[in-house]
Amino acid sequence: MHNAPMSDYKPTPRTRLRRLPKRGRYDRETVYAILDAGCVCHVGYVIDGQPFVTPTSYWREGDTLYWHGSAASQMLRTLEAGVPCCVTVSHIDGLVMARSGFHHSVNYRSVMAFGTARKVEDPAHKLAALDAFMERMYPGRNAELRAPSAKELKVTTVLAMPLTEAVAKVRTGPPVDDEPDYALPVWAGVIPVEMKFGKPIDDPRLTSGIEPSAALRRYRLARR
Amino acid sequence: MHNAPMSDYKPTPRTRLRRLPKRGRYDRETVYAILDAGCVCHVGYVIDGQPFVTPTSYWREGDTLYWHGSAASQMLRTLEAGVPCCVTVSHIDGLVMARSGFHHSVNYRSVMAFGTARKVEDPAHKLAALDAFMERMYPGRNAELRAPSAKELKVTTVLAMPLTEAVAKVRTGPPVDDEPDYALPVWAGVIPVEMKFGKPIDDPRLTSGIEPSAALRRYRLARR
Repeated sequence: MHNAPMSDYKPTPRTRLRRLPKRGRYDRETVYAILDAGCVCHVGYVIDGQPFVTPTSYWREGDTLYWHGSAASQMLRTLEAGVPCCVTVSHIDGLVMARSGFHHSVNYRSVMAFGTARKVEDPAHKLAALDAFMERMYPGRNAELRAPSAKELKVTTVLAMPLTEAVAKVRTGPPVDDEPDYALPVWAGVIPVEMKFGKPIDDPRLTSGIEPSAALRRYRLARR
Repeated sequence: MHNAPMSDYKPTPRTRLRRLPKRGRYDRETVYAILDAGCVCHVGYVIDGQPFVTPTSYWREGDTLYWHGSAASQMLRTLEAGVPCCVTVSHIDGLVMARSGFHHSVNYRSVMAFGTARKVEDPAHKLAALDAFMERMYPGRNAELRAPSAKELKVTTVLAMPLTEAVAKVRTGPPVDDEPDYALPVWAGVIPVEMKFGKPIDDPRLTSGIEPSAALRRYRLARR
């Protein structure tokens, strides 16, 4: 359905890394993989000169980033007016412990995307986007659920932001110490960090005899 | 050293929750506990009307939030001028699966703090703040490390933001469905989500015979 052009992003004054340029990635494969590995982004917007950063669920389809919420949400109402937006997704992969405090670091993958969002007005597009969100989070679950009601759709706003200006930043690997410090008798290395999903916990009001699907019993975020 | 007054935050036009007010918490115990449970925040700031959201490490001491980085960092240089700032910390605790798409949700704890940061200029304060950061992340490790050099301190900026205006948001517990939907034959419940720390991985250049401490072998973020 969406065949994104897999050309690289062009660095812009907002996305060009001034420091540590070797950590920057402008290829869509990397940007998309980082976006698809997460489920909560941090959305930045400005009201009367004051920045706000709101965590929210999101999903990607092709070269569009989506997020949604109550039509009454201040964040969504601000952004649907088409004001500048920054969406950041970050994953922590490891705590990097060096032989000096200075070189301690974090292994991470992050994406910063700039643009303006628009409200998805077309009902069919809105429904398809919400279905895609459910399918991205819980493959196969749409088929088990009743359709959204007209009222539910009405009180839900879906925003779409084209991914036209983005940069990924990635740090991997062991610490990098000053050469003389390698002789110090200090442990150095990486403590891996991972987001882990546990075993499903039944709703206390669950009708007896209904089991979570096999996919939910060993849940992980779906990759594409 | 820091005895924070444990009075509640006063809701302001920026922190008062308009929707779902029952998810809001203004007591410092809750705000501090959420801040102390994480190690990466998302810092929002504005340059020429454009919002930026930068993930970065942080730490708290009393009623002050700190973060740091290269003195050349655009984020730090922007904020040290005293412009409005929003720092958000969020933890995902569970995927909440309801009997309708509409009521799917996420269990989370988040804090949004507003203010302006100042650069920590006093060398003793700066050194103490960096020591506190190391101790917060890796208790006992300061004692194993050489002191920061004058040059390292010079190229490092530490920012401090008083926690004067903040709100926590928390969702816990099972899904909440529309009453008629409880009769639907659909699994509902919560998939727990947790940040897990793995076993330390030695730096390939580690001098043989140096072991990670017992605390690092079963690493978790220190609570206060």
